[in-house]
Amino acid sequence: MREVAVIGVGQSTFGKFPQRTAVDLGREAVVAALKDSGLNPKDIQAAYTARMYDCWVTGQNILKEVGITSIEMVNVENACAGGATAFRGAWKEVASGNYDVAIAIGVESMTTSPIAGKMIPPDKDDLEGHLGLTMPVIFGLLARRQMEQYGTTVEDFAQVSVKNHHHGCLNPFAQYRKEFTVADILNSRMVCDPVTLLECCPNTDGAAAAILCSMKIARKHTTKPVRVIGSALVSADYRYRQEDITVSPLGRKTASMAYEMAGVGPEDIDLVELHDAFAPEEMLRYEDLGLCQTGEGTRLIRERVTWVGGKVPVNPSGGLLALGHPLSASGVRNIAEIVLHLRGQAGDRQTPNARVGLSHMLGGSLAGLEAGACGIHILAR
Amino acid sequence: MREVAVIGVGQSTFGKFPQRTAVDLGREAVVAALKDSGLNPKDIQAAYTARMYDCWVTGQNILKEVGITSIEMVNVENACAGGATAFRGAWKEVASGNYDVAIAIGVESMTTSPIAGKMIPPDKDDLEGHLGLTMPVIFGLLARRQMEQYGTTVEDFAQVSVKNHHHGCLNPFAQYRKEFTVADILNSRMVCDPVTLLECCPNTDGAAAAILCSMKIARKHTTKPVRVIGSALVSADYRYRQEDITVSPLGRKTASMAYEMAGVGPEDIDLVELHDAFAPEEMLRYEDLGLCQTGEGTRLIRERVTWVGGKVPVNPSGGLLALGHPLSASGVRNIAEIVLHLRGQAGDRQTPNARVGLSHMLGGSLAGLEAGACGIHILAR
Repeated sequence: MREVAVIGVGQSTFGKFPQRTAVDLGREAVVAALKDSGLNPKDIQAAYTARMYDCWVTGQNILKEVGITSIEMVNVENACAGGATAFRGAWKEVASGNYDVAIAIGVESMTTSPIAGKMIPPDKDDLEGHLGLTMPVIFGLLARRQMEQYGTTVEDFAQVSVKNHHHGCLNPFAQYRKEFTVADILNSRMVCDPVTLLECCPNTDGAAAAILCSMKIARKHTTKPVRVIGSALVSADYRYRQEDITVSPLGRKTASMAYEMAGVGPEDIDLVELHDAFAPEEMLRYEDLGLCQTGEGTRLIRERVTWVGGKVPVNPSGGLLALGHPLSASGVRNIAEIVLHLRGQAGDRQTPNARVGLSHMLGGSLAGLEAGACGIHILAR
Repeated sequence: MREVAVIGVGQSTFGKFPQRTAVDLGREAVVAALKDSGLNPKDIQAAYTARMYDCWVTGQNILKEVGITSIEMVNVENACAGGATAFRGAWKEVASGNYDVAIAIGVESMTTSPIAGKMIPPDKDDLEGHLGLTMPVIFGLLARRQMEQYGTTVEDFAQVSVKNHHHGCLNPFAQYRKEFTVADILNSRMVCDPVTLLECCPNTDGAAAAILCSMKIARKHTTKPVRVIGSALVSADYRYRQEDITVSPLGRKTASMAYEMAGVGPEDIDLVELHDAFAPEEMLRYEDLGLCQTGEGTRLIRERVTWVGGKVPVNPSGGLLALGHPLSASGVRNIAEIVLHLRGQAGDRQTPNARVGLSHMLGGSLAGLEAGACGIHILAR
């Protein structure tokens, strides 16, 4: 496998756009990534496009709009890990030498989809799902367990949302750019005790794209290429129920594979973008990723370690909570965020001297609390 | 890239099963493929699952039912070429050395899907689609042009359906196992002049699976491994409208790439499984695949060259017309059919001394008559 660079990233604006199609959003992201890369549409040799809600050769529909046709195109889905899956597909094409330049696209038009929302509950063949184990309920259960096991408080959960909304105010692409206080968060409508409305990610329309290429091509276009040094994608092991629901064996396995490939450890990571679909989740992911010991995630929030300006900013983009969560787009979008920081182009939310960043995405619950897929990428300059 | 073998194939029964889920159908196919391969569930290292109508970590849902968990799983879609896309994804994993054993699954539950049917019209952003350019209309236009350009008659179209239904009678897995006469076909309900009901593929529920592995592993389990000698997947070039709608530049480009990789030509092919969604289409695909010159497809039907027992049997399985067409399943299922012939296990429809077979799938119309993806695989013993 040869080394691969990310040479261009782009995203659409995120928000609710009932007048815009997935193709329209995707085009905006692809045009931005092409412009960022300095490459021409004809340079793209393969395409991986992730989406859940527009399953009809979506990538082809998007790419023909910018004149990219007649190449190998694959459309993928892995629930919220779809974007990470598309990125990994494109990475493999370049890493294996099949192609020199490939694009990964993630897109979702949730407000225009006739099925978005219906698909959010876990596995439709799953009795637990039919009994009401929807996403907010899963994270409500996790949150209760965190409170019980680790002494986490509702104020701690609210602080995650305060942090990510603060970060969103620093990101011109964020769906919600508004500061909230702990009281604002706690006083918002209760969705599933103890998870309040402002602790849930919104429904979002949006797209993101990343262009990957060989180091040889990257060096022609930039003196500071961002490299993909770790990539892992794994599905959960449903044969065994989790002993401790606050621990994701899947997330830990995937992280350990990505760290091993990258030759770095959690202590080397300068910033993280991770799956914060619900505020309580974020602290558990700190632990899965080894940013702290199990049970210590709450401390990282209390000590402001993961705020922009802290030791390891987490979700400086605003995360799913404030930037928004167009499901399959998020995994590409959060890699784009890492790239901006590694290049020193992240504006008011820049992580100083960022050298190594980690992107994490979990997707798809089935038969319980563990996810269907976890995708982790580690990038470095 | 190293050589790859297909070591196991399997399929579910095909038909209309309103009581069965996609997961249930997929499991039946996976169990059959595992049994055929002699491998254990724990030997599978990566999975690619194609489907259009159940976009929620479908592969994970299927595979956990047979104890395959905790591996890399990717769900793909490329309309009717989805199965070919999944197979190619699994092939790449083994060919590149990423994994030694991978499974490709195609599945579709069309009767239980709340959206199947709604998705069949071409691109929803496409004016032509909104004006009525649905699939039967596209093939009706093509058929009219064939009649005009090549002197093809409605009896010729009907003969394709007579042939494939005859083949379906030889295949225990076929949805329709009934002989029809030319008169039966022509007297069935007119769907889009000149295409009649019995010249349209049915809606079908079903699944298929194929297990691919390194030659080293294959040789441990069989003395006659089937090898993948050619693989190509391309999307259409929409920048230019086709000069002649009876010719698919996409199909021809993909075929030429697959032939070149395989080091064989059309004259070496002993049997073909191809996309016969509508009877008139089959003769055009003969031409795209180089089985004859442009305009000579009709002759192959008239001279019975492509019947079981003829020089190059086409769709000995019964094809989409009689075996049925669960969209994303068909591309894996038709590779499974090739494998059976190359092994000499195709029963009453066996191609004598088959050494090289070709699987062809086209999928997804957008902005005109050309498809969104074409996937071709050439297999040999």
